[in-house]
Order: sequence, then C-alpha cells, then structure tokens
Amino acid sequence: MEQRGRLTLPTDADMVEETLRLKELLGADALRDCDGTTMPDELLSADAKKYATYYTTRKDNEWAKANPEEIQQEYLISDRITARSNTLRIRLMKGFHTEQLKVNEIDDPKRWWEVIDRTTGEVVPTDQWEYDKTTGEVEIHTIPYHQYTVSFLAFLIWDPVHMYNFITNDWKDAPHQLTFDVRQPKTQKHVKEKLKQWCIEHPDIDVVRFTTFFHQFTLTFDEQKREKYVEWFGYSASVSPYILEKFEKWVGYKFRPEFIVDQGYHNSMFRVPSKEFKDFIEFQMIEVSKLAKEMVDIVHSYGKEAMMFLGDHWIGTEPYGKYFANIGLDAVVGSVGDGVTMRMISDIKGVKYTEGRLLPYFFPDVFCEGGDPIGEAEENWLKARRAILRSPLDRIGYGGYLKLASEWDGFIDTIQHVVGEFRQIHENMQGSSAYMAPFKVAVLNCWGNLRRWMANQVHHAIWHREIYSYVGVLECLSGMPIDVEFITFEDIKNGILDNGEIKVIINSGDAGTAFSGDKNWIDEKVVTTIRRFVDNGGGFIGVGEPSAYQFEGRYFQLSDVLGVDREMNFSLSTDKYNEMDPEHFILEDIDGEVDFGEGMSRIYAQGENYQILCMDGEYSQLVVNTYGKGHSVYFAGLPYSPQNCRILLRAIYYAAGMEDEMKKFYVTNVDTELAVFEKTKKIAVINNAKEARETDLYVHGKKVMHLDLEPMEMRWVEY
Amino acid sequence: MEQRGRLTLPTDADMVEETLRLKELLGADALRDCDGTTMPDELLSADAKKYATYYTTRKDNEWAKANPEEIQQEYLISDRITARSNTLRIRLMKGFHTEQLKVNEIDDPKRWWEVIDRTTGEVVPTDQWEYDKTTGEVEIHTIPYHQYTVSFLAFLIWDPVHMYNFITNDWKDAPHQLTFDVRQPKTQKHVKEKLKQWCIEHPDIDVVRFTTFFHQFTLTFDEQKREKYVEWFGYSASVSPYILEKFEKWVGYKFRPEFIVDQGYHNSMFRVPSKEFKDFIEFQMIEVSKLAKEMVDIVHSYGKEAMMFLGDHWIGTEPYGKYFANIGLDAVVGSVGDGVTMRMISDIKGVKYTEGRLLPYFFPDVFCEGGDPIGEAEENWLKARRAILRSPLDRIGYGGYLKLASEWDGFIDTIQHVVGEFRQIHENMQGSSAYMAPFKVAVLNCWGNLRRWMANQVHHAIWHREIYSYVGVLECLSGMPIDVEFITFEDIKNGILDNGEIKVIINSGDAGTAFSGDKNWIDEKVVTTIRRFVDNGGGFIGVGEPSAYQFEGRYFQLSDVLGVDREMNFSLSTDKYNEMDPEHFILEDIDGEVDFGEGMSRIYAQGENYQILCMDGEYSQLVVNTYGKGHSVYFAGLPYSPQNCRILLRAIYYAAGMEDEMKKFYVTNVDTELAVFEKTKKIAVINNAKEARETDLYVHGKKVMHLDLEPMEMRWVEY
Ligand SMILES: [Mg+2]
Ligand SMILES: [Mg+2]
Ligand SMILES: [Mg+2]
Repeated sequence: MEQRGRLTLPTDADMVEETLRLKELLGADALRDCDGTTMPDELLSADAKKYATYYTTRKDNEWAKANPEEIQQEYLISDRITARSNTLRIRLMKGFHTEQLKVNEIDDPKRWWEVIDRTTGEVVPTDQWEYDKTTGEVEIHTIPYHQYTVSFLAFLIWDPVHMYNFITNDWKDAPHQLTFDVRQPKTQKHVKEKLKQWCIEHPDIDVVRFTTFFHQFTLTFDEQKREKYVEWFGYSASVSPYILEKFEKWVGYKFRPEFIVDQGYHNSMFRVPSKEFKDFIEFQMIEVSKLAKEMVDIVHSYGKEAMMFLGDHWIGTEPYGKYFANIGLDAVVGSVGDGVTMRMISDIKGVKYTEGRLLPYFFPDVFCEGGDPIGEAEENWLKARRAILRSPLDRIGYGGYLKLASEWDGFIDTIQHVVGEFRQIHENMQGSSAYMAPFKVAVLNCWGNLRRWMANQVHHAIWHREIYSYVGVLECLSGMPIDVEFITFEDIKNGILDNGEIKVIINSGDAGTAFSGDKNWIDEKVVTTIRRFVDNGGGFIGVGEPSAYQFEGRYFQLSDVLGVDREMNFSLSTDKYNEMDPEHFILEDIDGEVDFGEGMSRIYAQGENYQILCMDGEYSQLVVNTYGKGHSVYFAGLPYSPQNCRILLRAIYYAAGMEDEMKKFYVTNVDTELAVFEKTKKIAVINNAKEARETDLYVHGKKVMHLDLEPMEMRWVEY
Repeated sequence: MEQRGRLTLPTDADMVEETLRLKELLGADALRDCDGTTMPDELLSADAKKYATYYTTRKDNEWAKANPEEIQQEYLISDRITARSNTLRIRLMKGFHTEQLKVNEIDDPKRWWEVIDRTTGEVVPTDQWEYDKTTGEVEIHTIPYHQYTVSFLAFLIWDPVHMYNFITNDWKDAPHQLTFDVRQPKTQKHVKEKLKQWCIEHPDIDVVRFTTFFHQFTLTFDEQKREKYVEWFGYSASVSPYILEKFEKWVGYKFRPEFIVDQGYHNSMFRVPSKEFKDFIEFQMIEVSKLAKEMVDIVHSYGKEAMMFLGDHWIGTEPYGKYFANIGLDAVVGSVGDGVTMRMISDIKGVKYTEGRLLPYFFPDVFCEGGDPIGEAEENWLKARRAILRSPLDRIGYGGYLKLASEWDGFIDTIQHVVGEFRQIHENMQGSSAYMAPFKVAVLNCWGNLRRWMANQVHHAIWHREIYSYVGVLECLSGMPIDVEFITFEDIKNGILDNGEIKVIINSGDAGTAFSGDKNWIDEKVVTTIRRFVDNGGGFIGVGEPSAYQFEGRYFQLSDVLGVDREMNFSLSTDKYNEMDPEHFILEDIDGEVDFGEGMSRIYAQGENYQILCMDGEYSQLVVNTYGKGHSVYFAGLPYSPQNCRILLRAIYYAAGMEDEMKKFYVTNVDTELAVFEKTKKIAVINNAKEARETDLYVHGKKVMHLDLEPMEMRWVEY
C-alpha cells in the first residue's frame, strides 16, 4: 500500500525538526508556508516539493503607498437614510472601518458615484448632490421622507484577508497590508517584474501557490472591526475606473454603480443575476484569465509549477467558466469544508491536479481549550471521503501553525488515518471513476454550471439557518453515485434535455432567489419544456419553493407536475382533504422521523395523482406525484444527514422511473454507502456513522455479503 | 335588577310547554323559529315578540321549477388542466356536486364564459373553443403543455345553506330547496307579492327575520358532498347575465368573468381587491340596498319589524358600506363566534337595535357524546363579554333545537348566568359608552371600514393556522378600551391622519395580501405620509409582514420606521448583531413567555433606534423602535390570549407616546380587564380566566382597591 505522497504539510520557522519528523511519519511529499508563517531555509533542501504562498496584490506596502491611485477599490453603498426635509447629509464611511476602507477622492464622484432615491428607485441627478471632502459627507437635495443611498468607490487600504487573519490571531505588530490593483498598467508591470525577481530569488521553491490572483471576494468590516458583509462569490471589490472604462468599451453601454451595489445586496448569489452583472462577470473572466495566464507563464518560465488557491482573490477566475482553462495552471488548491466544497475543487477541469486543504486549519480558534480539533477532523473527513470516492482530489493537505497540531494529543494519529484512507482510495480506484447511475441529474437554477456545487451558499461552507435545508441537497449529492449537472433556465430553453441524458431535474431554494428561479417560472418555454420532459418519463424533484412565482392562480408554476402548491392565503377558502400514506419506495429503508430541516410551511397537495408521504399537521412535507409517464417528488427541506442521502437517492431513482436499477450496487443500512470501481472490481463500503453499523451488500440486485463495520470504517470488498 | 327582556329563544313544534317554561325561567321576550324548526301555533299568543325566519330566495320550489332561467347563478371555474396536445376537453362539473350546481346552458356561453390560458394569462378567443352539451365538456384548441381553465355560469339548484344544514343534520326526506334570483323582474314581482301575502297570513308575527336578502356567500360542495369552497365574504354567487348587463351599463366597461373568478381565488378577501371587483361591490351595494328597502317597506306596511340576519344571503348588503342605512331595517342579528364577530354586529349603524346569536347553536354536532356545549358557551361568553362592554349588542339569543339545550344537564343554568350578566351590563351602562383611550387606533389594510372587524378572516370565526396569529390582533382590540378605525391606503392618501385623532396605525398580515397591503407599500404618497406621521409623534404597530413588498433593497418598505426587516436571503451576506433586551414598558406586567402564534420567521432588527424585546434564536419576535418623535412596535404574530391583550394594550400606549395615560383606569392582573362607565360611575372588572384571580384596580393612576375574583367573574365597582 502507498505510504507516501499526495500530502502537503505546513511548516514554520521554529518547526524544522518537527516538520521533518511529521513529514516522515505521515509520508508528506510537499511542504508549504502560510499567511503568517515562514518556510525555514533549513527545509528548502528537504526531500519534498516546496510550495510558497504568493500574494499578487499585497505584501508590498512600499509600492502601494507610492501609487495610491492604484490601490484596489470596492463599490460601497452608504447607509440608507430617510430625508426629513429638503436636504440630507450622508456620512459615507459610517458603518465601515476607516482602517480598511477610504473614500476614493481621486476619481470624479460625479462620474463614478450614484445617489439613488430608494423610495422611487430613481437616480438623483448629479447637480442635486455634492461631496464634501472636509466632512466625508454627501449633501443631497431631497424630497422629505424619501430614502437615499450613495454608491461610491473606496480604496481597500487594508487587505480584507490580512485584516481577518490579523484580528482572528490577535496579531499585534504586523503592519496592515495595503492592496494594489494588478489590473492597472503601472502595477501590472511592477507585479510581473516582482514575480520574475521572486522566482529568481527562490530557486528551491517548486510550486508558486497564488493566493490568488487579483480580486478579493467581498469582505468588509464595520466600525468595531466586526465582519459587516461577506460574500464569498462577491465582485464588489473587483472594480476601478480603469477596469470600468474598459468594461464600458467592451460591453457597449454605460456602466452604473447600481450594477455592482445592487440595491445594497451586492449581487448576492441569491439574487437573480441581472444581465449587466452577468456581462460584468463575463468581462472579468476574460480579462482575469488573460492576465493570470501571463503570471502563470512567468512561473513556468522559471521551471516552477503554478497553483491557484480557490479563495481570497479568486474573483473573476471562475473555475467553471469558459476561460479558466486558458490560464494554464498546474493545480488548484482549496479548502474542504464538506463534500460540497470538496467537489467544488475536485470537479475543476483544465488543471493537472487538484489539492484539498482539509479542516481544521491549524489556528488557535480551534486548537484551544474547549476546541475539538479531532472531532472536526473526523466530521470533515466523513463528509469529504464520500465525495472523494465520486470525484477524487489528487492531493490533500493542511494549513496553519504545525506546532498547534503536533502538540495536540492524538491529532496526528487522526490525520495519519485520514491520509491512509485517502491513499487507499487512489490505490484501489487506479485512476478510474466509481460506478454512476445510468442517467444524469441536473440541478436547475439561474447560475448553472458557472457556479457548480455553489448553489444556496453564502460563504464557503458556512451554516446559516436559512440555507442548510437546501445546501443539504448538494451535500447529499456530492457523495452519491450520481452524475450531477448544474444547468440554467437558458440551458433548458436551448434544449439541454433533448439528448435524453438528463433524467431528473432538481429545483431547490426559496421563492424569489436565483436558486428557485423567480420570474423564469413564468417563461412559457421553460414551463412547457419541463412539463413535456416529465410527461414523457422524466423526473422533477422540488425542494422548498420550487417553480415559485405567484401568477395566474398558482404559486408553484409547476404545481401540476409537483402535485403540491403553497398556501399563500389566497386559496384558504378552498378546502383541502390531504391525507398521509407513507407506504412508498422512497421510504422503504427509513425507520423513524424524516428531518426536513427548517421545512417549508403551508404546502398542500393538489391534483389527482399525488401521494403524501409525510405531513406536519395539515401541511405536507414529502409528496410524490405521477405526471404522464414521469414522476415528481417534493421535499419541504432536505438538510444533510446519512438518512437524507438515502431518501434522496431513492427519490432520484423513483423520479427517474428506474427503481429496478437501484440495487445494482447497494448497501442496506442508511448510515452506509458504497462506491464501486468496476475497473478494479473493488467496492468501498463506508460507514458514515461514528458508531459501528451492520449492513447488507447487494451486487446486481442480489445480496452477496453481510458486513459489520467499525465506527467510520471504510471497508474494501472485491467482487 | 332586570330579570326579563333582551333575550330571544328558539322554539319548535313539539316544545310548547318547555318553551313557555324556559321563557319564564330565562326572562325571554322573543321567540323564533329556525331552519328546520317550526313555530307552534300555540305559542303565537304567548307574551313575547315572535320572530319568523323569512327566506326570500328559497322555500318555493314550485316557483323555481316554473322559472328555471331565474334560478340563482354562480360563476365557477373548472379544474385547471394542462394540455398535452393541440386539443383538450375539460369537463366543467368535475369536482362539483351535480345536486348543487348545474351548468347554465340557457345563456350564451360565448357571451358569458371565458377560457383562459393560465400559462400566459391570455383569453382564448371564443372561436378556439366549443361547449359540448352532450358531455358537459368544453373542447379547446390548445398549445401543448399550457394550462387552461373555463370560467362558466352555473345554476344553484340546491341552496347552499339548506344543503349544509341538510348534510349536517342528516335530514332525509326534506326536498332540496332550489334557489331563485330575486333581482330578476319576474321573480322580484313574485317574491314581493309573496311577502305581502305572507304578512297578511301571519298577523301574529312581530319581526320578519330575513335570512337574508338576495345573494348567498360563496359555499360550494364537491362530488362527495364535502365543502369545496367557502368564503363568507364571497360575491361569486351574486351574478346573472341580467345583473351583469346592468353592471356593464352602470360601470361603462365590459364585464369579464375573470372579475369574479379571479384566477380561481374568487376574490378571496386576502386578495388585493381589483378596481373591477370594487366597482362590482359598489354596484351590488346600490342595487341590493334599493331592492332590500322595498322588501322592508312591505314588512313595515303590515306593522311588523324587519330584521336582517348577517349571514347566508348577506352579500351586497355590506353593513359598513355607505348604502346600508338606506335599507331602513329595524335590526340586525348575527352569530357571535368571538369578540370580533360580536363587534361585526354591534358596531353596525343605521338600525334601531342589534342582536347577537350566541354559541353554541343547538345542533347535534355539539349536543352529542364528546361534545361540550357548556364549555363552548363559556368560552363564547368570555370573548363576547369583553367586547360587549365596549360596544354592546342590544339583545342576545340562541338558535337551533331547543330540545337539545333543555335536555343537556346544566346547560340552561349556564345560559341563565350569561343572560343575567348581559342584562347587568345594560343596567349599569345606562346607554352610555365605556371609557376609551384619548386617541384613535387605525387598522390599515386594503378594505378599511367596508370590512370593519373582518380583516384576515376566511369564514366567520373559523380558526385557520394561517390566520389566527393575525386575527388575534382584532380579537384583542374587540374588547379593549380603544376606539378602533379601519382605514384604507386611499384614506391615508386622502389625509385621514391630518386631524390628529388617529395616534396609532396597525398593519397586520402576510405579504402580498390585502391585509398587509402589497403594492400599496411602494406608493410614494403612502410611505411618506406614514413616515411623516410617525416622525411627528405617531405610532406604528406592525404584525407579521407589515409594509412588505420587495423593492429597492428592502422587503419591509417601512423598515426605517419599524427597525426591522425580513431576511429574504438577499441580505444573508450582511452580518447582524441582534441582541435582546427585554426591559421595557410593554412587558412590565408580563411573566413568562410571550406567545407569537405561528410567528413570522427571519425577522432581524436594523437601524440604530431599535430594542429587541423577544427573540427566537438569532431572529426577532418583538421589537420597538423610535423614529423622530414617534414609536413603532413589531410583533412576529399576536394570537388572542388575555396576556396578548395586555401586551397589545401596552404596545398601543407606548406607540402613541402616552404611557402615562394608561393607568387612568387599570387592573394589574393580565387575565383581568376593566370597563369604566363615567356616566354611572361604575366599573366592571372582568376575570377572563376560568380560574380565580387577584387584581389591583387603579383609578386616575392610583391603586384604589384589591380584588379577589371568582373564575370568569364580572365584578361591578362604584368609584
Ligand atoms: Mg495545502
Ligand atoms: Mg373549511
Ligand atoms: Mg457572517
């Protein structure tokens, strides 16, 4: 069995001996530095690849200070203030931290700012307001009791991630790292020269780990240095007059700050993306990929590899966009928060290898009294492992202060076990893919494949009460024997269902969001195409508020397909006679309650072809419906759990009308799953529970084995 | 003390002796028959007023059968069917009961029906569909996978209330009572003649109790004789080509069935009423009041009183509309389901007296094994009593089979106690009104005073999970020392706030409904007027989704006034740092948990002037906010309970900025309330709990008395 390789460890100046010991013990073949740690010279000659974290946009305050006009910028929106008379003064920096952001007074406010009357949505003409530099306020000629906002440009005078790390680790002396905008010509030239120089000065470094390229996701702090706004997918800090003038030229219409600040929602991924925002992303992808390629070419010219960190300044790279492969990267590395974020990395094409940084990060917020780093490592691995079996990372690694990990009793044993299982997977799969169901499942939303495995997320793997009942769907899918596509409403209209590969569509999210689809559901082409698809034998799975848009007597526009609608009070006068009948293929393995998470309220069944499998009082939570030759399944919510993975798996086979196929390869216990490698004739049976489990293994519909599995065990079986 | 009067009892053919006994025992001064019972001749000479239930629209099958074209009609909407090819046949009566309704094949379908493509909202041209009498189907030329409905006219061949009573009481032999449309000339003439004849033939009857006039609220049964659709406020059964042609002439535009069927929602009161529906109501009010007056005049010409039952065929009378008083009625009687429905009767102007029919109705669905008529009578009285103290009925009464009541152990004692308390209230108030707070509170919605005390209701006092957290607001108000107005958004724009009488506005309901207000909240005039009102010292109380309409970066358009907004996912990226601080005037009397009912989810506080009094996890449930000189209070829900009455009372005084006034007259225990009659210097202190309670009485801010109250006691105190 492989005992070495596929593993990257962090190191630090004071950890030379311990690094070497752990490298041997764990079989690491790469070492890395991190933000706040240093690779000791003594290790540069170690028998391992050396990664160096490289920051294109910071760690050069001298340059930033010398070129203040080329510091990175962000579109901010002021507080929304109600006028009480005919004038109003809005202090722009109220609510922001002045150590992080500074109003851009260099570029003309009248050209780049926008004052909006939010009571009418109208733009206030530029002669009706004035910026007062002495107070930092905008004075507006107003209509009493209307509300106003100012959208304005600010310089990012403290890199948000540096600021975050500084605050989290309570750093004291480190100077605040300013940012600079690599897209601008002067800085671009400087940064390229610096990278060349750096490559020359670091002959022992094998891998330049870009963290990342040019634009930070949106991360803003408030006056108390608390996080104020964070969107891991946000483009608000990827702007500057230089970029925006180029954008205007490229797109052929005038730029408006509103394209970025978006009523103050900053184009949260939950917003149905506007045409203008999609244009802007397209433009940024083109420009970022071009410039990133130049950086990668430099790295290659010095015989080093170029690796991109999927995080920090990843904005505009869009690994699932059509320009990403052009960058020519050797690798992508990213943080593995769960199965979903694992797939977010491992599914990336156009690189030679992918690497996942497992949790926990070796930071004192976890390695502390009351912290549970071993528990976190186990939970993380349980979620990552089942997803890796479907779409493997090539490498794994860790980050942070190695000292913290090495001194925590039992932690090194834990990761040694993880690394061992990871190598075992690669050894047994031999580069092949695990068996997948003989059809594709498509997740339908406004973002589609551009945001593959990113639906319903606010910030990389962060739990929110509003989203976990939807994110669960993807988390379940991330480790299921299912080939998952992410498609848009445009894809539907362009005929993506025509070739018959997709057998099941999933639409999951709250009404009004990009993930449910909002107005797309009153697009005649969309609804008729999906109805025809299901009528002819396709499947439709809805979670939460699928196809929701109040129109012409229905809230769920596919209520005929789904067999359910939501009571929005307008049909309270209509009597419902909903009764439960839980006997169904979908619940065959399930004992006890189904967990619907927050659970969408007020769902009732309607039509003549439904069967309600679960109810909460008079409302329904799990409903199946037949529609011509096709089937639908409605879930009020589907948070991640091993049981819900099983329920979703069954729901998919039911929706696809292929129940008979399910037991081709199958394990009975809901806490267990399997991955089958037909090439090597090996089956991994995994126990996703932290307790021992018994399970029966089915191959080609027949029970072939009974297995007793240890807690969290991965058992390999030949067949 | 009064021992006699103000009470109406039902009687029946076999109950002569018992009626006389109970009349004496309870001091009844009026006797009545009911649907299904008969006034025995022996009682016609009794010393009491005799009421006779009079049905203008039924109990004359001979006439109905002879004039089938003048049977009442209802607009129905067929099932919504998805076309799978280029033609579709919709069977109109599917889902309806053919004993109740029959397709109108007399009037031209092409003139009066409408086929609508619900996928586009477009009307299908009349040459694209055909009605097939032989099958009762409409064949439509369709676009595949579009959905279609047929709106059509049907005759009401079984009166809905007769059908309901027939089913509920399991009547066997009674012939189904057909309906006829009194608005049509032939029937109108017949009905008037019949009424005259009836008056002549019933010289001993004192009061003609109309049940009611001409149009039944919407009540439709399905194929299994189950209730299919019921809307107590519905106009769908108030139509006929005769009426609609008159309407077209009056209103000046062409009628469309869609004005009535309303996408299948049948103008549920929760729908923001369309201009066309409001026009139709106006027209019906004018016509119904005119014709009703003619009926009343006939009754008066025979020396009898005319009483209207607020129910059954009350549609178009609109007791709070501007034509009602013209009818010239002597009295209105209605069912008292709770405090709200009591006020719905007792607040009516333009009649000499009002009468409330208390619950339970003497029907076998309550007077049966497992039934609790005494408990129901007590609950009913507890709710009615506190409301009667604010706005008294002149009379009370009961309905149904007297035999059931007289044979139920202890029931007569219970109502004897109720009647005694009712007379005591009248004796002590001496025609004066109870003390009210020195300002008005306005409930703001799309219906305003036309539907006084009717907001957020589906069917007269029926509990629904979706509404009880809103109906509670009105139920609390119905018995509070507060002068309540019901106002519309038009009233706001027309300056109703200008005279300073209204100090507090309440907006309570789900987003999108007529009770929250929907698009009215993006009306610049509405929001600026209310902001100015609060800024200058007014109060605003929001419950559920007040001022909700997603627009320009906010869901609650008055988020600045309210200090809260609802998380619709778009601002998940914005960090909230909401913390609770329950120390506040509003909660001073309250021990323990506050009940928010279903409780609106995802409410967060924002701005700089809020205080969160109650939270559920990270979300807020009760929040106060200051806004200039004014105040607002947000409730996630407010079901009726004595404790919530107290909380709302305090919230109102807080919102009005008049906390100091509250203890002018006050009792401390939340289960107790008081009503003060300044004219007679008497105070009623009531115990709303079924257990004994202690309470302190405050007069002019000073504690004057400690009271020990028996369960449900009403104690009269002189001051
Ligand atoms: Mg790594
Ligand atoms: Mg009902
Ligand atoms: Mg956060």
